[in-house]
Amino acid sequence: MAQLIDGKAVAARVRAEVKGEVEKLKAERGLVPGLAVVRVGEDPASKIYVTGKKKAAEEVGFNSWEMHPDEHITQAELLSLVDKLNADPEVHGILVQLPLPKHIDSERIISAVKPEKDVDGFHPVNAGRLSQGRPGMRPCTPLGVMRLLDEVGCDPSGKKAVVVGRSNIVGRPMALMLLAADATVTVCHRKSNLAAEVATADILVVAAGVPELIQGEWIKPGAVVIDVGMNRMPDGKLKGDVEFAAAKERASFITPVPGGVGPMTIAMLMCNTLEAAKASR
Amino acid sequence: MAQLIDGKAVAARVRAEVKGEVEKLKAERGLVPGLAVVRVGEDPASKIYVTGKKKAAEEVGFNSWEMHPDEHITQAELLSLVDKLNADPEVHGILVQLPLPKHIDSERIISAVKPEKDVDGFHPVNAGRLSQGRPGMRPCTPLGVMRLLDEVGCDPSGKKAVVVGRSNIVGRPMALMLLAADATVTVCHRKSNLAAEVATADILVVAAGVPELIQGEWIKPGAVVIDVGMNRMPDGKLKGDVEFAAAKERASFITPVPGGVGPMTIAMLMCNTLEAAKASR
Repeated sequence: MAQLIDGKAVAARVRAEVKGEVEKLKAERGLVPGLAVVRVGEDPASKIYVTGKKKAAEEVGFNSWEMHPDEHITQAELLSLVDKLNADPEVHGILVQLPLPKHIDSERIISAVKPEKDVDGFHPVNAGRLSQGRPGMRPCTPLGVMRLLDEVGCDPSGKKAVVVGRSNIVGRPMALMLLAADATVTVCHRKSNLAAEVATADILVVAAGVPELIQGEWIKPGAVVIDVGMNRMPDGKLKGDVEFAAAKERASFITPVPGGVGPMTIAMLMCNTLEAAKASR
Repeated sequence: MAQLIDGKAVAARVRAEVKGEVEKLKAERGLVPGLAVVRVGEDPASKIYVTGKKKAAEEVGFNSWEMHPDEHITQAELLSLVDKLNADPEVHGILVQLPLPKHIDSERIISAVKPEKDVDGFHPVNAGRLSQGRPGMRPCTPLGVMRLLDEVGCDPSGKKAVVVGRSNIVGRPMALMLLAADATVTVCHRKSNLAAEVATADILVVAAGVPELIQGEWIKPGAVVIDVGMNRMPDGKLKGDVEFAAAKERASFITPVPGGVGPMTIAMLMCNTLEAAKASR
């Protein structure tokens, strides 16, 4: 019977650590980390996410700004907004909330953010630095997973890690981070023999976006199971990508959904912004 | 008994294709692809590599230049040489031969090359584009492996691929290319249970730099085996990272060493330079 990994508690601890460091930064260097969030138009999910990020930023003592152009903003105008934020010394982190309206080239916008202010870790230079094992901004969700592993005393070195999903936001950077931490890493996707691969995993990270894709009986006894899935079911409840009840019987540690990885993403965004501020002078 | 993959023949065919395209480019657009190679100091291996690259470039009809500053060149001087090449419209590809002298920050120099002229595919932006599944310059050796797989009719989609080694030049980009081609990919290194992982591979790519690290009996019957290793033995002969004689009994296709992957690297450098030239106007 697995122990639950309480992401909410870990995230609260991370935010408290950040808050402590912010106070020190203010006292010692007169420096207040600043996070600018750009939200274009009225996507309802984006509004919820951005509100959560701003709230977290204020709670840890950051300056925070929300830029909220309407959905008809042109690409050129949005680029010039990003440039303004790039040039602003009080802004240490810039987050452009995705998705952007269809007439905007998201890649172009993300690539326009200064890599050292790219607290989402989505800029190609930051993806490249991760891929090449070099320092840089890391995407928040896989960074949060690394922190959860650390919290439960799971050192990936020499372990077999299986990542299900290969998005640019979670799967691929997750695999590269686990590889950098000396795990033997397998990346699976819709063309993979999931049952066979999952059975080999000492560490299983699932970010597929398919409710209960991973059957509990596939899981290696004693595995650490991290479920990044957040699937809204017809009854309104959230379900993960792993059959939780059955998986819990076999895993040593497992994240619940909700309350597992979810809260870590914003917490790690705070860490990234803090690091950006520290590196800024 | 495996069929040999004749990298020398494939590389010759690739170079012939490039040559044909160069003739067309000259005739139709008056455009001659240009490759500038920067070799610093007197590293004897670098001299051999650079000579091979220049010769290949001339054979396919490129303009080619060798810049050969002495080993005492300062970082600032080398950066300004790179800038000059970046600005030169006749130079479509820039290759800074590694290793550089110890007083030079290689990362800094590689990052100074314009990504669209980075025909080695080592710039962080190109590593990031590969990692994110976007178009960009790809490192030549793994690109050559993809071409060899294609030549023997091996489509990675849905297959299990195991990559042994995780360098920035071969292992990691190789894994990302196989993933982009829809293989299920495992990356192994010195902390991995090699025998167990190798046994699952339909496609095995080994770039570990350890002679005969991979035992023939580990190999899955019917696997396609690509040996990137080139280890100079005390008797002067080259040995790969795979026990060739035993592996040949089990694989369906296997690269010899030498004459397998080796010749592909320069051939793919020609392809990258051609593509850079085509994209230049």
